[in-house]
Amino acid sequence: MIAPDMATMLCFIFTDAKIPAPVLQSLLKKGVDETFNCTTVDSDTSTSDSVLLIATGQTKHRRVPAEGGKMVADFARALKEVLLDLALQVVRDGEGAQKLVRIDVTGAKTARSAKKIGMVVANSPLVKTAIAGEDANWGRIVMAVGKAGEPADRDTLSIGVGGTWMAKSGGVVPGYDETPVVAHMKGREIEIAIDIGLGRGKATVWTCDLTHGYIDINGSYRS
Amino acid sequence: MIAPDMATMLCFIFTDAKIPAPVLQSLLKKGVDETFNCTTVDSDTSTSDSVLLIATGQTKHRRVPAEGGKMVADFARALKEVLLDLALQVVRDGEGAQKLVRIDVTGAKTARSAKKIGMVVANSPLVKTAIAGEDANWGRIVMAVGKAGEPADRDTLSIGVGGTWMAKSGGVVPGYDETPVVAHMKGREIEIAIDIGLGRGKATVWTCDLTHGYIDINGSYRS
Repeated sequence: MIAPDMATMLCFIFTDAKIPAPVLQSLLKKGVDETFNCTTVDSDTSTSDSVLLIATGQTKHRRVPAEGGKMVADFARALKEVLLDLALQVVRDGEGAQKLVRIDVTGAKTARSAKKIGMVVANSPLVKTAIAGEDANWGRIVMAVGKAGEPADRDTLSIGVGGTWMAKSGGVVPGYDETPVVAHMKGREIEIAIDIGLGRGKATVWTCDLTHGYIDINGSYRS
Repeated sequence: MIAPDMATMLCFIFTDAKIPAPVLQSLLKKGVDETFNCTTVDSDTSTSDSVLLIATGQTKHRRVPAEGGKMVADFARALKEVLLDLALQVVRDGEGAQKLVRIDVTGAKTARSAKKIGMVVANSPLVKTAIAGEDANWGRIVMAVGKAGEPADRDTLSIGVGGTWMAKSGGVVPGYDETPVVAHMKGREIEIAIDIGLGRGKATVWTCDLTHGYIDINGSYRS
């Protein structure tokens, strides 16, 4: 959970724009679904995490059209940037976290399926300890894809790390050179790509590695 | 996963009894559902875990009736004992495990719901690190019950450790004395009781604690 343990994450975002509450609510829900709700530290949840978006209406501008339009689209883009920045600060601050991990899932049957697969990989203790140990263990990623219980096929599955595909269509990429992958794993920001090869569903989720620091912090807390 | 990592658990059970294969299969499925499939080390799965039950038919005895009866019931009981013993050996052997944890869930809407709740608690890193730290953190247990997504109500929920109820019907038990709970947490076998207070569904699952040993073993492995 979020440091320092059993904390409650309270997030307040203010804008001076004059946007009606129903429009704000809809933009916030979509933005949170793609940012905060796509992040995890350890799969455990806090009891009252909240994100509030408040428009003061101080800025003088023309009425925001109910059907959206360019102004709303621009605002939505800026809002998502803010939400993602805040959400990733939370993940980076995960107990004992040393690395921020981005997992891009493509080729799933649906977007929902892609997100489920991404979150199962993101929460796998074996994947997270491999990352802590700077080992690009794609066998563990394949294992986590399998246990997600979503449509997947070993023979169409591809796994990449740091922009290098290690396995494609169920086998090791011919002539695969691990040098760039090994170098990438030593960094602070890790990128994992998973292509399921079955459809057009995609999702991106974020997590952190699982280190001794996590055990130190959560094993020494006294309730 | 099972030590030494990415291992495959192969379990073979032999009996000299003369029991037809379909009866054996049905007994084994039920037995495994209540033992091996109610245990977890870290939620991660191996790719080809197998349990085989083989009857040699060497023993001379009367034909086993298709409809079951006392002989089959006795055999089922003995089989479950063997399966549970083997399954708990696997959990005790979990990477870095210092404590075996038994979680009894009662009062759930259904048995399936009880098992789901039990497994979510059993896989919660926050619950498992609290146990490693010998802290009877019932707030973390309540959190894990909540994130299971099964029917549950704070006001009917009771949590006990080592035979002592800490919280009953959503509040701390009046006059609760933590002395026996603190003593229990220092042992090698931990018992957690969760009563949902909504129905008659129940299940028992087993897990282990999450320690520095887990990070050592899984973070230092090289693929």
